[in-house]
Amino acid sequence: MSLENLSCQKSFGGWHKRYKHRSAVLDCEMVFAVYLPPQAEQGGTLPVLYWLSGLTCTDENFMQKAGAQRLAAELGLIIVAPDTSPRGPQVPADPDGAWDFGLGAGFYLNATQAPWAQHYRMHDYVVHELPQLIEAHFPASQARSISGHSMGGHGALVCALRNPGRYRAVSAFSPISHPMDCPWGEKAFSRYLGEERAKWREWDATVLLETAGERLPLLIDQGDRDDFLETQLKPEALAQAAKAAGHPITLRLQPGYDHSYYFIASFIDDHLRHHAQALK
Amino acid sequence: MSLENLSCQKSFGGWHKRYKHRSAVLDCEMVFAVYLPPQAEQGGTLPVLYWLSGLTCTDENFMQKAGAQRLAAELGLIIVAPDTSPRGPQVPADPDGAWDFGLGAGFYLNATQAPWAQHYRMHDYVVHELPQLIEAHFPASQARSISGHSMGGHGALVCALRNPGRYRAVSAFSPISHPMDCPWGEKAFSRYLGEERAKWREWDATVLLETAGERLPLLIDQGDRDDFLETQLKPEALAQAAKAAGHPITLRLQPGYDHSYYFIASFIDDHLRHHAQALK
Repeated sequence: MSLENLSCQKSFGGWHKRYKHRSAVLDCEMVFAVYLPPQAEQGGTLPVLYWLSGLTCTDENFMQKAGAQRLAAELGLIIVAPDTSPRGPQVPADPDGAWDFGLGAGFYLNATQAPWAQHYRMHDYVVHELPQLIEAHFPASQARSISGHSMGGHGALVCALRNPGRYRAVSAFSPISHPMDCPWGEKAFSRYLGEERAKWREWDATVLLETAGERLPLLIDQGDRDDFLETQLKPEALAQAAKAAGHPITLRLQPGYDHSYYFIASFIDDHLRHHAQALK
Repeated sequence: MSLENLSCQKSFGGWHKRYKHRSAVLDCEMVFAVYLPPQAEQGGTLPVLYWLSGLTCTDENFMQKAGAQRLAAELGLIIVAPDTSPRGPQVPADPDGAWDFGLGAGFYLNATQAPWAQHYRMHDYVVHELPQLIEAHFPASQARSISGHSMGGHGALVCALRNPGRYRAVSAFSPISHPMDCPWGEKAFSRYLGEERAKWREWDATVLLETAGERLPLLIDQGDRDDFLETQLKPEALAQAAKAAGHPITLRLQPGYDHSYYFIASFIDDHLRHHAQALK
C-alpha cells in the first residue's frame, strides 16, 4: 500500500498533508487529508480522529473551514479526513447529475446493487482500509475515534454502532439520524441497497441503537436554524431510540445555528475534547 | 447608503453576515462580510478590524478559513472583510484574463489611468466609504485597525501609512512589501498609475515608511517556505526601511510556513490580540 504525497502545509506547528493512493476496497484512486500535530514528530504514537464529511464535500472542507487544527495541536490528536465517495472516471455517478447521490455522496455504506457495488464501499474503506494505511504510514496508535457532519454524521454513528470496540468515542454534527425515513436516505439506500427496506436497517443509526453492542456515549450538536433539520436530519428519532434503549446520548440543539461550517467551527473544540478524553 | 443583507450565519455566539451595496466611490455594486461578535448585541459600540484579502480572493476566504471568529468573539472585535476589487460586468478586467490584475486584484490604490480610474479606487473605498457604511449601520465605534494578506498585506500597510491617525493598529501576513520592485506590483502599478514610476512611490509601503507621519508599530508574519517570498514579497526591504527610519517593526519569519490560509490561521490569534490591545 503506497501513498503519493500531494501537498504538505505547516499548520499550528504540525502538518496538513494530502495523499493519493490506490484503494483496493473501492477499486479506484482516492485522496485523503491528514493533520499531524507537532507531537507526531516526538517519536511515539498518537490517537486518531476520523472525520467524515457531508454531501458534495471532499477531504478539503473540514481541513480548511472547521478550525480544528489549533486544539488538535494542543491535544496531540491526529485527524484524518477521507473523501465522501469513490472517485474517478470509472466510478458511476448519479444518472441525473444530482449532488445527493453517487459522487460526493457515498453514504459510508457498502452497496449491494449494480452498478454501485463495485466501488461504493465507503464503510469498509473508512473502517478498515484507511486505518490500516494510516497506522502503517504515520505515527498513529490504534486508539481511534470518529465524527462527522450531516451525511458524515450518519457515517460516524453507523461506523461506531456497527463496529463495537473499534472506536473509543463518537460524535456528530447535524447527522442524518434516521436515513430510512428521509428523502436523502431513501434515495441513496434504495439505489445502493435495493428496494427491500429490511436491508436498510443495518445502515440506520436510529435502528442500530436498538441493538447496539456497546454503550459509547453519543455527543450530537444540531443547529435549530438548520434548513435540513425537519426534513432530512431528524435527531429526535435518534434521541427517542437512545432513550428507549437506555443508550447514553447528549443531543444539544444550538439556537440560531445553521448547517454550515460556521456552526461546526463554533463547537468543534467541544467535540475534540470529547474525543481526546476518551482516547487518552 | 442602503445595505442589502445576503446571508446571516451564527458563528461563535455572534453573526457572520454578508451585504451588497452600491458603492459611489467604485461606481459599482459591492459585497462585503462582517463578523459581529456576541457583544454587538449588548448596546454599546465595538472596535473594528478591517481585513484586506489577497489576489483572487473575495470577502469569503478570510471568513471561511482564518478561524478568526473564535477569538474575535472573546475580544469583542468586529471584523469587516471587503472584496479585493470593484466587480460587475461594467468593470474592466485584465485584457488577457490574468488573475494578478483587474478583477480580484485592485491593489487597494486609486487608479489614475483609463480605463481603470473610473472603478478601481479601492483605497478610498476601504479607508473612507466602507467605514462610513459600517459605522452607520452596525454598532461600530471609530476605533479602527487594519490587517491583510499578501496584496491585502500591502493594502493594510499602505492604508495605515497614508492615513496617520485613522488606524490604531496595523499588521500584515506575507505582505507585498515593496510593490515597485516586484512583478505583481510593477504590472499593477504601471497600468493603474501609468509608467511614471515616481507616482508609484505613494503606494509602496517600503517607500512610505521613509516619511511616515506616525510610528504605528508594524507586526508582520511571513512564512519562510512561501513560494512568493523572494520574487514578490520582499519583507527585508520593508525591514531595512523601517530600521533606517527608526520605525518600530516586528517581522517574524515563521519556519516551515507557506502562503496559505493554514499559515494565517496558525497566527491569526497573535494579530487579533495585537489589534485588540491597541483598540481598547
